[in-house]
Amino acid sequence: MPSPRTRVVREPERAVYDREAVYRILDEGMVCHVGFVTEGQPFVIPTSYGRKDANLYIHGSVASRMLRQMTDGVPVCVTVTLLDGLVLARSVFNHSMNYRSVVILGRATLVEDPEEKLAALRALSEHILPGRWDETRQPNERELKVTSVLRIPIEEFSAKMRTGPPIDDAQDYSFPTWAGVLPLEMNAGAPVDDTHHKPQRTAPEYVKKYSRKR
Amino acid sequence: MPSPRTRVVREPERAVYDREAVYRILDEGMVCHVGFVTEGQPFVIPTSYGRKDANLYIHGSVASRMLRQMTDGVPVCVTVTLLDGLVLARSVFNHSMNYRSVVILGRATLVEDPEEKLAALRALSEHILPGRWDETRQPNERELKVTSVLRIPIEEFSAKMRTGPPIDDAQDYSFPTWAGVLPLEMNAGAPVDDTHHKPQRTAPEYVKKYSRKR
Repeated sequence: MPSPRTRVVREPERAVYDREAVYRILDEGMVCHVGFVTEGQPFVIPTSYGRKDANLYIHGSVASRMLRQMTDGVPVCVTVTLLDGLVLARSVFNHSMNYRSVVILGRATLVEDPEEKLAALRALSEHILPGRWDETRQPNERELKVTSVLRIPIEEFSAKMRTGPPIDDAQDYSFPTWAGVLPLEMNAGAPVDDTHHKPQRTAPEYVKKYSRKR
Repeated sequence: MPSPRTRVVREPERAVYDREAVYRILDEGMVCHVGFVTEGQPFVIPTSYGRKDANLYIHGSVASRMLRQMTDGVPVCVTVTLLDGLVLARSVFNHSMNYRSVVILGRATLVEDPEEKLAALRALSEHILPGRWDETRQPNERELKVTSVLRIPIEEFSAKMRTGPPIDDAQDYSFPTWAGVLPLEMNAGAPVDDTHHKPQRTAPEYVKKYSRKR
C-alpha cells in the first residue's frame, strides 16, 4: 500500500499500487538505482539486484563504500525504470515517454544467515540470466566471505507507468506533423564467445534466446 | 576533476574522469535518475534530461513535488547508466555487466531567464530525438508558465565503465561451461502511427532510423 511518502501525486492515473504488477516490473528490470545519504549528500548508484518473494537483494564487495554505508539501517530508496517508447505528439509540450517504474523506500539489512545469503545470490543470478547458476562454478567460502548481500523489504513502494499514443490538445490534431509512438526495447545481440575456450564451445540456448520479456 | 566524494574507490581501473568521455555517456542516455533528500529520506526519481555545454537540464510541471523540493539549492545527485552487456564467467563470482555510468553531484537551480529556458527545453527535446523540435508546435506562453526547468552544472562528477570479456580465476578456465559476453542494446521498433492522423502520414526518417549510438 502507498504511504503518504509513496503515493503518486502528479498524474495519479499513472499510479500502480498492485503488488503483482510491481513485481513484474522489478522482474523485467536488470539494473536498479540505489539512493542513500552521506553527510546530507544523496548518492545514486546503479547496481544489479534480485527479488525473492517480498524482498529485494543487492550485493557487492564487503569493501564497497555504498554497501558499508547502507548496512547501518539508514533510509534508502531503490528505483527500477523500464523505458518502453518515445511518445511523439504534435506539440513539444505533449511529448512524453512510455515507461514503467518502481520506487521502494526502506532500510537495508545485511544478510548474515548463510542459507539466505546463498539463496539471495542465486536469486540475483537467476534474475539476470535464468539457467546460469546451475551451469557455473559455485561460490566458495572465500568468495562468500568477501561478498556482502543486503536485503531491502518491498513494503513501502509505488509504481508509475504510461502506455499508449500521444494525447494532443484538440486544436493541435490538425498540425501538419507525424505523431505516434516509437517503441523501445532492450535487445540482446549475438553472444560473443570468450577466446579462452578450449575446446571451443557454443553458447547455450538460454543465452542465445535471451529476452527480458516477463 | 573528481572530488573526494566522486573519486572512484572500488575498481579504480574502471574510472573515467575525462569530460568528453562523460559527455558521450550522457548524450547516449535517455533517462537519468535524480536523487534528493526529504526529511532524511532519499528519493530516486527517473526523468528525461538534456545537456548543453557543461550543464544538465531536467524539466517538469511547476506542481511537481520533486522539482519544487529541488529548487531550493539542495544537494542532488544525477546518475545516468547505460547497460552494454552481460559478462558470463565460469564462476558465479566473476559474473559482471558491461556498462557505462556517470554520477554528478551538485545543486539544482531554477532557470528563470526565458531565453535559457527555451534553449534548455530545446536541448531536452533534441537530446531524445534530434530533428523533432523544428517539426512540432512550439511551446506557448501558458505551457512555458506551467513548466519548470532546472539546471545542474556538470562540475563534480565521475564515471565508471566496464568493457570486454569475463576475467576468470586461472584455475576456472577449464571449467566446462560456455563463457563470454551477451551484448545488450536499446533498440527502436517500427514506429506506431497515431490513429488521429488526417490525412494519413508516414513517420519521418529521423524517427524510422532512430538510434542511440553516439
